[in-house]
Amino acid sequence: MTQTKQVAQIVGTLVVSCPDQKGLIATLAQTLADHGVNIIDTQQHTDLEAGMFFQRLRFDATELDLTRSQFEKLLGERLLPLEMKWRLSFADEKARVAIFTSKFEHCIYDLLIRHRLGELDCEIPLVISNHPDLEHVAKSFNIPYKVFPITKENKAEQELAAIALLRQNNIDLVILARYMQILSPMFIEEFPSQIINIHHGTLPAFMGAKPYHQAHERGVKLIGATAHYATSDLDMGPIIAQEVIACSHIDNIEDLIRKGRDMERITLGRAVRAHLEERIIVHGGKTVVF
Amino acid sequence: MTQTKQVAQIVGTLVVSCPDQKGLIATLAQTLADHGVNIIDTQQHTDLEAGMFFQRLRFDATELDLTRSQFEKLLGERLLPLEMKWRLSFADEKARVAIFTSKFEHCIYDLLIRHRLGELDCEIPLVISNHPDLEHVAKSFNIPYKVFPITKENKAEQELAAIALLRQNNIDLVILARYMQILSPMFIEEFPSQIINIHHGTLPAFMGAKPYHQAHERGVKLIGATAHYATSDLDMGPIIAQEVIACSHIDNIEDLIRKGRDMERITLGRAVRAHLEERIIVHGGKTVVF
Amino acid sequence: MTQTKQVAQIVGTLVVSCPDQKGLIATLAQTLADHGVNIIDTQQHTDLEAGMFFQRLRFDATELDLTRSQFEKLLGERLLPLEMKWRLSFADEKARVAIFTSKFEHCIYDLLIRHRLGELDCEIPLVISNHPDLEHVAKSFNIPYKVFPITKENKAEQELAAIALLRQNNIDLVILARYMQILSPMFIEEFPSQIINIHHGTLPAFMGAKPYHQAHERGVKLIGATAHYATSDLDMGPIIAQEVIACSHIDNIEDLIRKGRDMERITLGRAVRAHLEERIIVHGGKTVVF
Amino acid sequence: MTQTKQVAQIVGTLVVSCPDQKGLIATLAQTLADHGVNIIDTQQHTDLEAGMFFQRLRFDATELDLTRSQFEKLLGERLLPLEMKWRLSFADEKARVAIFTSKFEHCIYDLLIRHRLGELDCEIPLVISNHPDLEHVAKSFNIPYKVFPITKENKAEQELAAIALLRQNNIDLVILARYMQILSPMFIEEFPSQIINIHHGTLPAFMGAKPYHQAHERGVKLIGATAHYATSDLDMGPIIAQEVIACSHIDNIEDLIRKGRDMERITLGRAVRAHLEERIIVHGGKTVVF
Repeated sequence: MTQTKQVAQIVGTLVVSCPDQKGLIATLAQTLADHGVNIIDTQQHTDLEAGMFFQRLRFDATELDLTRSQFEKLLGERLLPLEMKWRLSFADEKARVAIFTSKFEHCIYDLLIRHRLGELDCEIPLVISNHPDLEHVAKSFNIPYKVFPITKENKAEQELAAIALLRQNNIDLVILARYMQILSPMFIEEFPSQIINIHHGTLPAFMGAKPYHQAHERGVKLIGATAHYATSDLDMGPIIAQEVIACSHIDNIEDLIRKGRDMERITLGRAVRAHLEERIIVHGGKTVVF
Repeated sequence: MTQTKQVAQIVGTLVVSCPDQKGLIATLAQTLADHGVNIIDTQQHTDLEAGMFFQRLRFDATELDLTRSQFEKLLGERLLPLEMKWRLSFADEKARVAIFTSKFEHCIYDLLIRHRLGELDCEIPLVISNHPDLEHVAKSFNIPYKVFPITKENKAEQELAAIALLRQNNIDLVILARYMQILSPMFIEEFPSQIINIHHGTLPAFMGAKPYHQAHERGVKLIGATAHYATSDLDMGPIIAQEVIACSHIDNIEDLIRKGRDMERITLGRAVRAHLEERIIVHGGKTVVF
Repeated sequence: MTQTKQVAQIVGTLVVSCPDQKGLIATLAQTLADHGVNIIDTQQHTDLEAGMFFQRLRFDATELDLTRSQFEKLLGERLLPLEMKWRLSFADEKARVAIFTSKFEHCIYDLLIRHRLGELDCEIPLVISNHPDLEHVAKSFNIPYKVFPITKENKAEQELAAIALLRQNNIDLVILARYMQILSPMFIEEFPSQIINIHHGTLPAFMGAKPYHQAHERGVKLIGATAHYATSDLDMGPIIAQEVIACSHIDNIEDLIRKGRDMERITLGRAVRAHLEERIIVHGGKTVVF
Repeated sequence: MTQTKQVAQIVGTLVVSCPDQKGLIATLAQTLADHGVNIIDTQQHTDLEAGMFFQRLRFDATELDLTRSQFEKLLGERLLPLEMKWRLSFADEKARVAIFTSKFEHCIYDLLIRHRLGELDCEIPLVISNHPDLEHVAKSFNIPYKVFPITKENKAEQELAAIALLRQNNIDLVILARYMQILSPMFIEEFPSQIINIHHGTLPAFMGAKPYHQAHERGVKLIGATAHYATSDLDMGPIIAQEVIACSHIDNIEDLIRKGRDMERITLGRAVRAHLEERIIVHGGKTVVF
């Protein structure tokens, strides 16, 4: 009796950016085709002002005729002369994510539920907080919860301990799920374009603390949230996603906070998913989100 | 032969605001009921923080047993002790509106089409511009178009001439439909809460000039427009309506401007309609929009 | 030493509907004012086509000079001649809610988190399911989880058992949080306008099963969800809230389901909150949602 | 003195679809690169269910080393073996558009204003109507307005006359801007995927006549519009764009119609623009809109 050999598809993603020039799409497509790689889909953008080329290629590597490290080496050789920045990933090597939280539970809950539902293709081996309050949330999803209380005095030290723990857990992405501490530039530079923060305002409006109070004070008719990469320039990091919802004179601060929570959850979930699907390229303080 | 006497309904609107206190709703409703006036619908809001009461009452005055001026006098007597600010209007006394424009035609066209379609219940006897460019638009709707060219030297003088023309035309509302001149405080104070401006940004983000360029520079993912009453503090007037639309890395400045035009038209149209329907109360730099 | 006596505010809500006639607002406001009741805010609507009057009055009953039952009796006497349907509630008498669920966890999680965050002012003493799968969710919020497995044969019997359990728990509102069984007319008639269902389609499009598959098949550019009161006429109950999100050719069925989940959660949360705040009046197969 | 020779860019667009297979992207990119054509941007989609490949390539043809007809011939030879359907266009060969209208002026006005503002890159040499009412609109934009009154008796004859006029004017796209006649299958088949209709409902809900009345009757909380290609199966053509706006118990039929007009204008404008930019591919009753 013959047996059907079911070969599982191996999906990879190549994300590139470089100064624009002729023939880039052909070069990339041909390089992949030459080694048995079939492109499943691709997104491409040329920023004419910046003179930059950006592309994401998702491909089936089942019939790749090289080892992954040989393939990486080949890409390095081919893409170097094009001044190309690139990153390569495979779906079977899942990103490892740590969630930072404080006392607001809506964002962490939302991320953990999305993860369980299969919306976020990653591992979440670690939750870090400066307060013990939300241990029950992490625990109900069987995720270790580590508390680093922060004071003015111990902040540098605690950040170093947290970084060590992140390194030890091979963390690729840090999500600040309403973490109510400002990370130091030192911490942020350890994880360039690897820390996603949710700001509860539609940046650049309402930067800083208490954006809902600011919005209420000003009498705006829309409130919302912004997911962005953390940079050492507070609230100025590259924006990934934004959402708003209508508000009116009827809404007091509590109503704005409540409405805002829904926007925070949706915006953060969308940004994290885009990051994990390798859809984001940061360039010049802005993002391309394919 | 019997003749059916068709009595046309006479609709009036009473808009009030005052420090909150017990019995206001009953007092107002009873005052109207006592004189044959039937409330068609009412909107009410209490701002607990500010301790303020706001109400709009739309009523059928067909069987009002007083003349309008007697009715006004009565309201004055009853509402004075309550420290009430109020305004009274009747649907058969249409507001008179002047549109100010410069060279962008989308907003003025939009207003004139909405007017023709019956969305804006007013008269538009006058278009004023600092440029001759859009005369054809006003003309195709049979509206006089008056040009007041503005230079640094003649600005004060031209504004006085414009005000005189507005007064002469009994204008109740001025709409700045992408009028590219900053009105002087003197002009604005002539028409308190009677000048609606459309700003092509989601205030308080992107105040000042070139909001689309600012938005593009910052890499935001939403752009929009804000309709507000003009105050002498530029771009800080009470917000009436705001709308946004998604944008992305694909959109260059021209795309943002194009997308923004749709938001400007919708936002301005909505704000003007709310004003004409007597749905707006300004209090403390913010609006109640019923 | 003098002691400050802090009197907690007692908030009540009166919701009324009746054939429209003159003087209703004055009568209601005066009735409340006569007995020391201060109206905090009110929403009112007149449906001119149907000739119906609707009003919601939220009031401070701290200085009510009657007992609650005397007050109810008084309202009955005053409102009967006006053919008024009315309901009266007090914020300190919380509604008791049961959640029905099956295997999808996003909606039940969302409701329980909103409840914990204080968005839903009610008690949730009971979760009922036809499957054991989600016991861990209810358990992590310390809520009893009761399984009634349904087969063709036992459906009537199990429904009766569920109704008995609901009655025993004094349940005021049943939420079908993606409960994958069709309730019998008998069950539904036990709880008129007291069962809220979330349908994963923008009714009346995509009635019945598999709305996302239908939407995908048709190639629509928007998908969404509808929260409605359950009636014996499936998917035809009065609509409370609807939300949509953009979709495109990129989205496969799984993507539509994922995007739809966000709309389901937001729509259901909004509808339940409106119900609990006594903002909804059902009339003629439609809702007034103040 | 040296003279700078400013070469104007010649932009072309190639749109292809075919059964999916390996190497398509490389083949297309290489074919263009071989003849001096530089890809400006590209969008690509693979429909895994249908096994179909779709791509749009926008390119700079300034240094194309073939004549356009040679280039077309070459593409034919290369793409035939791939079972590829393709279309090629150049920005300097503008599409020619005819607008069909009846008595509602908002959609035709909107299209003509967008055209004047440069949003719609086409020529509009012709407006056709079954009524004389809107001649003034076409006239104010200097466009010929031709009336074909339709009766039961003359419909076939008038359609033939209209088709003849369209052919005579080399019309590439027909826009039904609230044209209140149903085109016969004969007419529609003359212009496959070349007739865009705006339906004032969120299809597939509210097919047929009076969608706003249907929506009002049902008590929905969202209304909207759908732009689609006309097919002989009424209201079932491939959907291009949809937009909705919130509505409530407050809105009577007139309000729904008014709110709907804004959605119709935006949806139709967006669909026409996508068509003119060669962003749409129809496949299997659905659209890919890049």
